[in-house]
Amino acid sequence: MELKNNERIDDLQYKGLKIIQNEKDFCFGIDAVLLSDFAKGIKKDSYVVDLCTGNGIVAILLSGKTNAKEIVGIEIQEHVAEMANRSVEMNNIQNRVKIINEDLTKLKEKIKAGTVDAITVNPPYKAKNSGLINERDAKTIARHEISCTLEDIIIEAARELKSSGNLYMIHKTERLVDILSLMRKHKIEPKRIRFIHPNVNEAPNLVLVEGARSGKAFLKVEKPLYVYKENGEYTDDIKEIYGLE
Amino acid sequence: MELKNNERIDDLQYKGLKIIQNEKDFCFGIDAVLLSDFAKGIKKDSYVVDLCTGNGIVAILLSGKTNAKEIVGIEIQEHVAEMANRSVEMNNIQNRVKIINEDLTKLKEKIKAGTVDAITVNPPYKAKNSGLINERDAKTIARHEISCTLEDIIIEAARELKSSGNLYMIHKTERLVDILSLMRKHKIEPKRIRFIHPNVNEAPNLVLVEGARSGKAFLKVEKPLYVYKENGEYTDDIKEIYGLE
Repeated sequence: MELKNNERIDDLQYKGLKIIQNEKDFCFGIDAVLLSDFAKGIKKDSYVVDLCTGNGIVAILLSGKTNAKEIVGIEIQEHVAEMANRSVEMNNIQNRVKIINEDLTKLKEKIKAGTVDAITVNPPYKAKNSGLINERDAKTIARHEISCTLEDIIIEAARELKSSGNLYMIHKTERLVDILSLMRKHKIEPKRIRFIHPNVNEAPNLVLVEGARSGKAFLKVEKPLYVYKENGEYTDDIKEIYGLE
Repeated sequence: MELKNNERIDDLQYKGLKIIQNEKDFCFGIDAVLLSDFAKGIKKDSYVVDLCTGNGIVAILLSGKTNAKEIVGIEIQEHVAEMANRSVEMNNIQNRVKIINEDLTKLKEKIKAGTVDAITVNPPYKAKNSGLINERDAKTIARHEISCTLEDIIIEAARELKSSGNLYMIHKTERLVDILSLMRKHKIEPKRIRFIHPNVNEAPNLVLVEGARSGKAFLKVEKPLYVYKENGEYTDDIKEIYGLE
């Protein structure tokens, strides 16, 4: 496996899975691991789409955590999609994971409406026009809503999902009102939420949301997930998710 | 002070305030105490309305916790409003607290549009048509959306509030999507949220929400509030809110 400039291979410590990352681009963080764990209830033989897949981290983790039949990762940046493809080949999971280099608002021909069982997405966290940004930078595109907004993502998810199909998202808590009201607006009813706190004494900074296409209104707020104990170690919940126990 | 059948006087343990409650009706719980504490930032000389005031508990607590000029409690049930009125007189705060016996959807003449600085509400928790109910029972009216829905409350709050005026609400977490999306729909932007957990190991069951009329979208999720420690005692945060420390 030949690497390009600034690339490295990271071991995902999970079923032997590995990933290629470019140190100058956005590298995956705890968010991707938490999202794939939150979505591990995806059923056997499901057709899954991971929007904003980046280096493919969530799609690759889901190949290990679920028995989904097909997992398609969508990435708008060509060089990032190409790197994700090489990670898929390196893991020899190309029979189940495919990467499509496309703008998610232009998927109508590649993914038929109402055909997808589950969608995962770790979207750019920053709202459009928030702060000074360099629009061409790969890291910036991964972090800011330059190429697509939260509403674009939810509209596309609603188009792709089967009735009762699930959308799994991780986002910053400051966007909670946007997430919940846009999901409801586009007929993906938020059904399950889990907040992630740095520790028990701090406010949650991330939130996991599961919605169901055309679902009935009733929200279950789950037990919070604390990342660190007071002594600075990972909590048992996090160790379990990372497979460290 | 003469009491009617099944009535009792409870000491609120706060600045000498007391309240009359009817043991057969809905008696106040921790919710009212948490809501009045969450709303204690209400500014000096404010004009405040407490919707669904019941026995007047939140209006009475706010008279002690804030320097609001006028606090008007709205209660639809005549005998409950009358009891709230007697509590106001017993506390000798009738110069600041008034109780109006009216349906909150019929307040257009009694409260002018765009005049209120802050609104508090501890609404009926159960959605309309959820479970078997006796519609005439006072306790049932306090708990279920029989006389008004969550949207009725938010519409009325939006009508009454000045621009940038605040709505403070406590509700069950299962209604979070309804609260946030209805507030945004009616131009009361959710700005601050705090979740209340029985203890650190359990999911939150209640949520406090502060919205601002015509406010900009940006949500601050605060540190969680845990009610009990692992040994079953109240946490220090709760003791402080109850004035027990």
